[in-house]
Amino acid sequence: MQTIGYASHDTSGHMTPFDFERRDNLNANDVVIEITHCGICHSDLHFARNDWGMTTYPVVPGHEIVGKVMAVGSDVERHAAGDTVAVGCMVDSCQRCDQCRAGEEQFCREGMVMTYGSEDKHSDGMTHGGFSKHIVVREEFVLQVPGSIDPAKAAPLLCAGITTYSPMKRFGIDKGSRVAVIGLGGLGHMAVKIASAMGAHVTVLSRTPDKEKDAAALGADEFLLSSNEEAMEAKAFGFDLIVDTVPVAHDIDPYIPLLDIGGEIAIVGQVGPLNDPNAALLMFGRRKVSGSFIGGIPETQEMLEFCAEKGVVPEIEMIRMEEINEAFERLEKADVRYRFVIDMSSLEMPAG
Amino acid sequence: MQTIGYASHDTSGHMTPFDFERRDNLNANDVVIEITHCGICHSDLHFARNDWGMTTYPVVPGHEIVGKVMAVGSDVERHAAGDTVAVGCMVDSCQRCDQCRAGEEQFCREGMVMTYGSEDKHSDGMTHGGFSKHIVVREEFVLQVPGSIDPAKAAPLLCAGITTYSPMKRFGIDKGSRVAVIGLGGLGHMAVKIASAMGAHVTVLSRTPDKEKDAAALGADEFLLSSNEEAMEAKAFGFDLIVDTVPVAHDIDPYIPLLDIGGEIAIVGQVGPLNDPNAALLMFGRRKVSGSFIGGIPETQEMLEFCAEKGVVPEIEMIRMEEINEAFERLEKADVRYRFVIDMSSLEMPAG
Repeated sequence: MQTIGYASHDTSGHMTPFDFERRDNLNANDVVIEITHCGICHSDLHFARNDWGMTTYPVVPGHEIVGKVMAVGSDVERHAAGDTVAVGCMVDSCQRCDQCRAGEEQFCREGMVMTYGSEDKHSDGMTHGGFSKHIVVREEFVLQVPGSIDPAKAAPLLCAGITTYSPMKRFGIDKGSRVAVIGLGGLGHMAVKIASAMGAHVTVLSRTPDKEKDAAALGADEFLLSSNEEAMEAKAFGFDLIVDTVPVAHDIDPYIPLLDIGGEIAIVGQVGPLNDPNAALLMFGRRKVSGSFIGGIPETQEMLEFCAEKGVVPEIEMIRMEEINEAFERLEKADVRYRFVIDMSSLEMPAG
Repeated sequence: MQTIGYASHDTSGHMTPFDFERRDNLNANDVVIEITHCGICHSDLHFARNDWGMTTYPVVPGHEIVGKVMAVGSDVERHAAGDTVAVGCMVDSCQRCDQCRAGEEQFCREGMVMTYGSEDKHSDGMTHGGFSKHIVVREEFVLQVPGSIDPAKAAPLLCAGITTYSPMKRFGIDKGSRVAVIGLGGLGHMAVKIASAMGAHVTVLSRTPDKEKDAAALGADEFLLSSNEEAMEAKAFGFDLIVDTVPVAHDIDPYIPLLDIGGEIAIVGQVGPLNDPNAALLMFGRRKVSGSFIGGIPETQEMLEFCAEKGVVPEIEMIRMEEINEAFERLEKADVRYRFVIDMSSLEMPAG
């Protein structure tokens, strides 16, 4: 089927309208979705500009997708026409390996197929993401959006939500857990809301005091100014888990002493080097630095249901598809509270 | 009581005979030990030279202590005169905090008292370690040495043994676990033996092929040359736990891809910075970098019993006390297979 999206064609990352095909020859397990909303993640900008050296142009970004089911293949049982559904960061995996069988498709032994920028198993080209009017995805990678969540606000849960939910769930965050969040952007603000909904005592760490009011508004119990040495010392051994959403190289040594014995700092933002962490700080507290990467499909569905039950949704700013370049510019300056979502009804199919 | 030891008096680290007092006024829970053997740990050399900036001179090092009980205080129930006992890296803690109550005295909230180099609660000076003829320690920090272990060989278990046992036990190493050991020195050779006794499939990693034969002799199942890129790539996702005993700043990025999903690299050697580890390698495998620091008293007793049951003992080279300076020089060149142990009968009490 003919569809339209916005693509970047070179390392400028400049997005322009792009006509392309989604597969018409449906597989028995395919779900055809009309996209109504797509969140904008910092990775989209990185991919558009080939910051990670893995982009094939043209690239249609977008992996926080919500839409309506238009049609389903003959064997599809989980979804039906009219359902509000979602697609996150991946659209396929082998479905046979230990990781897939354990519902950890993001670690598929054969490599998962990313929603965009991966080789498409069904065409000669690459997969194309959610900055587009339609998408066709096998049913195992399509999530049900609970009715109580506004579809526009559901979109960012598919990446920002699951990325922060997964390490907290895995660590066992519960009532009374002490969670700190570093970086109050798209990921960070979801971490605060989800941790709070899990019953944790939540502290936002920031280098500047200007985030204090926002932190409280998002539900944080405390604010800790990381440039205040005295305040930092007073919080030594004060946290069970730190969720570090800072998306650039940085020093984690000032944060490690804040962890209690056996505590963990989960890196979810920076996809690259950490500056020389001191092993002594890990040893003298049996602490851990962990990496976490989105979550599996069953965990993503669980997260959506958790958010529906607890009323957790992101703070979003809706834009029209043609405003994407301005949104990328503002995203780069962290000038968004807290997640852009594209209203895909703003994208018109070409006439005829 | 009057005793004699060997002390360093300045940053040269040169060790000379040193007469000093152990407390005569026994507390009700004190145990008086005649030291028969003391292992030499790399930390002893660091302390003798004040490499870590925390030494108060004179310092009598030594925290791998084995000896015979000479006398006990009125309330001592766990030990009796004539028992073969051991003392490790700590001799006191508050005994009241959550960590002490959990048998994790090394993380005592008030700070544990190190066997040497800590303020002594019972005198104006500092604690003095096992490079000496006698030591007096409260019974809670005195371990029982199982009869089947040669006392000379028991000594290194008190630091090298527990330091490697603890992270493996905590991770859940068991029959069939895949363990890699980096660095084949005092700690590393114990890691190989203990992992093997736990039933793991053990691989030694080394930059040079000259360790291959030794690795096999110690019980390793495989040897992996870390300078061989092809061999390293073939082992990607091949290990559950890597025990990293390298005692200097180094790059852990070549090792992280060897960890399977959810795997962990436990740092037990380097007490200082790690070179810029790449968070992406942690994320795309949900891996962890952890620090581990000796073990608590109950876990140390458990380790001694495990080693007795499994027949696990270190490879040692016995020296006389007056050979300590030469031993330090050889230790610095890693010229020991694999642990020096001082035969304390070589140290004569001064006449009169």
